[in-house]
Amino acid sequence: MKQMESMALRWDGGRLWALDQTRLPDEEVWLEGSDPGVMAQLILRLAVRGAPLIGVAAALSFAAFVQVQSAESTIWKAWETLREARPTAVNLAWAMDRVRRAWELGGPEQVAREAEAIFEEDVALCEAMAFHGLTLFGQGESVLTHCNSGSLATVGVGTALGVIHRAWEAGKVAHVFVDETRPLLQGARLTAWELTRLGIPHTLITDSMAAILLREGRVQRVLVGADRVAASGDFANKVGTYGLAVQAAHHGVPFHPVAPWSTVDLRCATGSAIPIEHRPPAEVRGYGAQRWAPATSEAFNPSFDVTPATLVTSLVLDRGVFTRDQLATGILSRL
Amino acid sequence: MKQMESMALRWDGGRLWALDQTRLPDEEVWLEGSDPGVMAQLILRLAVRGAPLIGVAAALSFAAFVQVQSAESTIWKAWETLREARPTAVNLAWAMDRVRRAWELGGPEQVAREAEAIFEEDVALCEAMAFHGLTLFGQGESVLTHCNSGSLATVGVGTALGVIHRAWEAGKVAHVFVDETRPLLQGARLTAWELTRLGIPHTLITDSMAAILLREGRVQRVLVGADRVAASGDFANKVGTYGLAVQAAHHGVPFHPVAPWSTVDLRCATGSAIPIEHRPPAEVRGYGAQRWAPATSEAFNPSFDVTPATLVTSLVLDRGVFTRDQLATGILSRL
Repeated sequence: MKQMESMALRWDGGRLWALDQTRLPDEEVWLEGSDPGVMAQLILRLAVRGAPLIGVAAALSFAAFVQVQSAESTIWKAWETLREARPTAVNLAWAMDRVRRAWELGGPEQVAREAEAIFEEDVALCEAMAFHGLTLFGQGESVLTHCNSGSLATVGVGTALGVIHRAWEAGKVAHVFVDETRPLLQGARLTAWELTRLGIPHTLITDSMAAILLREGRVQRVLVGADRVAASGDFANKVGTYGLAVQAAHHGVPFHPVAPWSTVDLRCATGSAIPIEHRPPAEVRGYGAQRWAPATSEAFNPSFDVTPATLVTSLVLDRGVFTRDQLATGILSRL
Repeated sequence: MKQMESMALRWDGGRLWALDQTRLPDEEVWLEGSDPGVMAQLILRLAVRGAPLIGVAAALSFAAFVQVQSAESTIWKAWETLREARPTAVNLAWAMDRVRRAWELGGPEQVAREAEAIFEEDVALCEAMAFHGLTLFGQGESVLTHCNSGSLATVGVGTALGVIHRAWEAGKVAHVFVDETRPLLQGARLTAWELTRLGIPHTLITDSMAAILLREGRVQRVLVGADRVAASGDFANKVGTYGLAVQAAHHGVPFHPVAPWSTVDLRCATGSAIPIEHRPPAEVRGYGAQRWAPATSEAFNPSFDVTPATLVTSLVLDRGVFTRDQLATGILSRL
């Protein structure tokens, strides 16, 4: 068993800690997540978030648990609690299915090796996405991103923000515009914090301002993450992504979701088969402890939306870049 | 001189009070705005906001001031301070130009009569917009609106929200979806408060969720206010309006700006001639006293955006409803 560390996760071979992302950008607080019940709560309250990261975190939490627990019923209850913590991201179910097979094949040590392998693979997948994504850019582009898809959403350099990070290092990106991403403000809190730490020039906007930048030609490309990609290339991502895709298409600005292969769910033929998580209306009436809307006003709070592949210029996977026309041929089912 | 009262303004013939809209929805605090310096500050910090309302409030504040001041230089300084409190809304300059002419023609009493006339005209203009706007609707529609364009933005029933209010009374509107309208949350704080007071069923959404409702056919019509309308029919309104217009067009949902004639500025041939106010970046990094983005992150904060007439299904004025094709013929210049 290994010591492993990323921007948001620490594993010492038996215990797991996670950075509480709800406390960023002002406080860096680490919480132990070795207990699956605790980790499921961290995932549910978005202290640990980002489709790839929650897969790795849940797998490692399960690995920690099976080292100290041997009662089968307790283990399966913990496994199920983790697997069902969030419904939209497919990586979570995928990672939990991998550690379950490891348990059946070889017990606690096999589970730890499998969870550690998922961690290491995620680092490599991020670099592979960045490698392929880099081919998209000219020189010194300004790009726009939504939500957070960087080192706080993975255990590597990130998905969409990982591509942007590596493209900035290569001089291909000069400036990043960041959608704040209401209601939970992952762009304002997390992406702006990551870009500040990396020293990447960036400008924060409200989600409603993206259209101005697209119209004025101030953004050459839009990159976003994905929580689940259907066989058709339709994909679910943080709410607001679909509207941004509509606006990018209207202005002729290239639009690219970026995701690891584990995000592709071939059992979903199209986007309409992807389950969408709805969260408490109070998240829309304010932020954190602050409420600014009338307490009695109803609110709608889907956490994700679905963007059809027809609005995708190309999809960046760790296995390559796939254009809209290629997606329309059903290429994902043949990879 | 008269006693006049609206949801947001009270005038007793010599003194003026305004509802502090920054304290809504939880507190109803009235502040005296008889002094033009104070009123300009109330307008600048958005305690008094809404294009028609700030015109009426500034005119009445000037009327109060000239009753107690007689030094010309002091009076013109106060006049200029009020006229320049916000640059995008044309109603403010229009109302101040009217009271200036009244002063030149007849002194303080003429100013008060003129300011009171502007108040009464605004009430009538709102009803005229509602009268014409009502022709747009079928029965029991769900509509979407952005920002606040109701009784807190005018001294009458409102512009876009006034049409919605009267259409709801007539059974033509059944439900209202309200964009929260970041960064200053006029939808969440003000429109939701007005609709709650009126008993109109409504659902609050983040600005990024509108595209989902449009795609799912859950909204039959979008109505928004306007802070300035160019001769071409292009118009400036609260930031986020342009993106919403793009999304409505993409989904084939009718999109209607609603404004009084005083909002039309024929000196602006097209939208590109409309000056856009930029506000402090801190408004994007958080809300009120709460900051959630890194303090050092740059932010972009235009208060308005411009929607081209090509995305307008029809423009509702107090003088009638004008379709996109009519706007394209330059009809506004001939009214």
